[in-house]
Amino acid sequence: MTIKETLLSLKKAQALLALQNRRRKDTALLAAAAAIDGARAAVLSANAGDVEKAKKSGMKDALIDRLFLDNRRIDSIIEGIKTVAGLEDPVGRVKAGWKAPNGLFIEELTVPLGVAAIIYESRPNVTADAASLAYKAGCAILLRGSSAALESNRAITAAIKQGLRSGGGIAEAVELAGSGDHGDVDEILTSRGLIDVVLPRGGHDLIRRVVENARVPVIETGEGNCHIFIDASADIPAAAAIVENAKICKPGACNAVETVLVHRDVLSAFMPVLAARLGGRVELRCDAPAKAAAGTAVKDAAEEDWETEFLDYILAVKTVDSLDQAVDHINRYGTRHSEAILTNNMQNAEAFTQRVDAACVYTNASTRFTDGAEFGFGAELGISTQKFHARGPMGLFALTTIKYRISGQGQVRE
Amino acid sequence: MTIKETLLSLKKAQALLALQNRRRKDTALLAAAAAIDGARAAVLSANAGDVEKAKKSGMKDALIDRLFLDNRRIDSIIEGIKTVAGLEDPVGRVKAGWKAPNGLFIEELTVPLGVAAIIYESRPNVTADAASLAYKAGCAILLRGSSAALESNRAITAAIKQGLRSGGGIAEAVELAGSGDHGDVDEILTSRGLIDVVLPRGGHDLIRRVVENARVPVIETGEGNCHIFIDASADIPAAAAIVENAKICKPGACNAVETVLVHRDVLSAFMPVLAARLGGRVELRCDAPAKAAAGTAVKDAAEEDWETEFLDYILAVKTVDSLDQAVDHINRYGTRHSEAILTNNMQNAEAFTQRVDAACVYTNASTRFTDGAEFGFGAELGISTQKFHARGPMGLFALTTIKYRISGQGQVRE
Repeated sequence: MTIKETLLSLKKAQALLALQNRRRKDTALLAAAAAIDGARAAVLSANAGDVEKAKKSGMKDALIDRLFLDNRRIDSIIEGIKTVAGLEDPVGRVKAGWKAPNGLFIEELTVPLGVAAIIYESRPNVTADAASLAYKAGCAILLRGSSAALESNRAITAAIKQGLRSGGGIAEAVELAGSGDHGDVDEILTSRGLIDVVLPRGGHDLIRRVVENARVPVIETGEGNCHIFIDASADIPAAAAIVENAKICKPGACNAVETVLVHRDVLSAFMPVLAARLGGRVELRCDAPAKAAAGTAVKDAAEEDWETEFLDYILAVKTVDSLDQAVDHINRYGTRHSEAILTNNMQNAEAFTQRVDAACVYTNASTRFTDGAEFGFGAELGISTQKFHARGPMGLFALTTIKYRISGQGQVRE
Repeated sequence: MTIKETLLSLKKAQALLALQNRRRKDTALLAAAAAIDGARAAVLSANAGDVEKAKKSGMKDALIDRLFLDNRRIDSIIEGIKTVAGLEDPVGRVKAGWKAPNGLFIEELTVPLGVAAIIYESRPNVTADAASLAYKAGCAILLRGSSAALESNRAITAAIKQGLRSGGGIAEAVELAGSGDHGDVDEILTSRGLIDVVLPRGGHDLIRRVVENARVPVIETGEGNCHIFIDASADIPAAAAIVENAKICKPGACNAVETVLVHRDVLSAFMPVLAARLGGRVELRCDAPAKAAAGTAVKDAAEEDWETEFLDYILAVKTVDSLDQAVDHINRYGTRHSEAILTNNMQNAEAFTQRVDAACVYTNASTRFTDGAEFGFGAELGISTQKFHARGPMGLFALTTIKYRISGQGQVRE
């Protein structure tokens, strides 16, 4: 099938899926989880083939690790689908309802967004995550994984489809873009009227390419140049502990801190504590005052450090004279993801929260909490860094829209 | 100023406007309303110039009427701004709030979307409507009206800015794109990162052009190829009254009915009543069975009639064998705006509502109620016919997004 034919078939399937109640969707999802369990041998063998090919092509070890599946990872794929089956149905909720002066009864209902497409990199677990989340939200989905994971994704998708079918579900609501050739991405991105949303999931370059070329709605995710501002009134040991956590706990995460902004009044108190705490494990890149205050050898920060999402054991440090300067720096260099102030001054906490333009603004906590599970959303679709349609950690509701249901008794407009 | 400079200035102004509370915004808006009252002479004289130029250029009477202002129309512009001042502030609402298991207190707040642009046709009242709605939502706005209304829009914008300033508001949050030259529209549509939403307001061609060329988020509005399905169990006289209302009350409105789908079982009962009721006033374009049942001379419907938003005293009529066929026709030809079923069968009402993909689905009422004022939203921004970010009649909330405010006591992630 061409991409267009696939999308037309997904659209048909979605119209049927939209009519299924929660019990039917969950039954089909649990059957899909069971089918993956039953297809372990096929999935592992397909994956071994992908991994061997990747090794031969010289793929880096870190990337091969993302591609690699074993029984434990398949367990976690299966658990993921079961978790989604356990989530509340986002569809059919009455968000508001009222009687209008003309006697019409108006209800605002959640309905599935429609046909989604996800364009992602090597991790094969995304195939099952995305398929199950979309199915639960009543959306059909086109999966476009990387060519490196093609055989793994084929095996997983085949198992999911077989499971959905055996569970009385709609297997046609899940399709894998087959060829692995780059032309299909362009076709996906320009299929106006056939796709209701595209979700890019991966590194900076993938997301940029999708955002810049898409002619269909996109939810941009993941880029996080996050800051922590150490206000003049911050508790110094607590601040150092929070910065350590936000930097070291998982440096490759989008919610890890990349730059610390330190109020000049606490620079000499904070920097030695920070340097001692991170010493040897994190490369500090400091402006001149912070460097002088550190009391130990650190690197010089360059302009480009303020712009960089390091995703590594590197932390930029900048001195600021005021909260205003901190806010201006964040609104200039930040990616509107997660930003924190550490302070004991209520006015400053409030001003920072109001003025920083980001999905998540923290007072006295690590930026690392920006996450669907930590927020209590169960499974997450990703973290939206745009303001349109969805913002911040996205639960299933990001794959819904609304419909007004209006009931009358013959009303006409005057 | 170039468009880019204007947008950068709007962005700065928006950051300040976002900090203003409701009272300050309303005071500034009421001062803007008073300033328009005080600038009647200037506005009327500028408008007289636009109208004279339009007449010389051979503009059609209907369009000149849309362009034309008199004291009564200025009254209504002033009233519009006052209405907006009276609306609840959409910003700063806590949509949800909870304590996470880690002790963080998470709140989901509404915040302004940012910088909006509106691209619109000749009616100068849109200038004041859009400026006041955006201001109330804490958004800065770039107004791009038609070149035919340039002098009128200049006079209105100047009065609004002067009023905002005198009312202690932020005049820089409202700007008119000045030149009237078409290049600025292209620049607006491609200003990624500087514009948070573009609202096209006008006819089919304008909306298409914006949707197809925009590289910034758009809320598509207004196209309405709306249907009414006369089910086998419908009350015939009530159905004819509803169709008459939906067609004749304002044929140029996007929520007017364009095609009636009649169940074959009631065709012979319904068609003569409809033909008698609309006779002489509406041109009926019928398929063969409907034509035969009408009992009077009507035209033949062609395939293109099913696709056409007539916006005129024309109504297409098609015979269907079942609810399924009606739903399929609507989902194929409709523009996802407003669709109605007239029925006394509960199962059919429910199935129609579930299966028709549209912003507003009616049971036993005229499609003409799809309107912000009728829904009780006060002023409206338009009617979204897309599913992303906003759908159906849009109140001020369409110009907001959310921000998570997270308060901790030193939490770090495990």
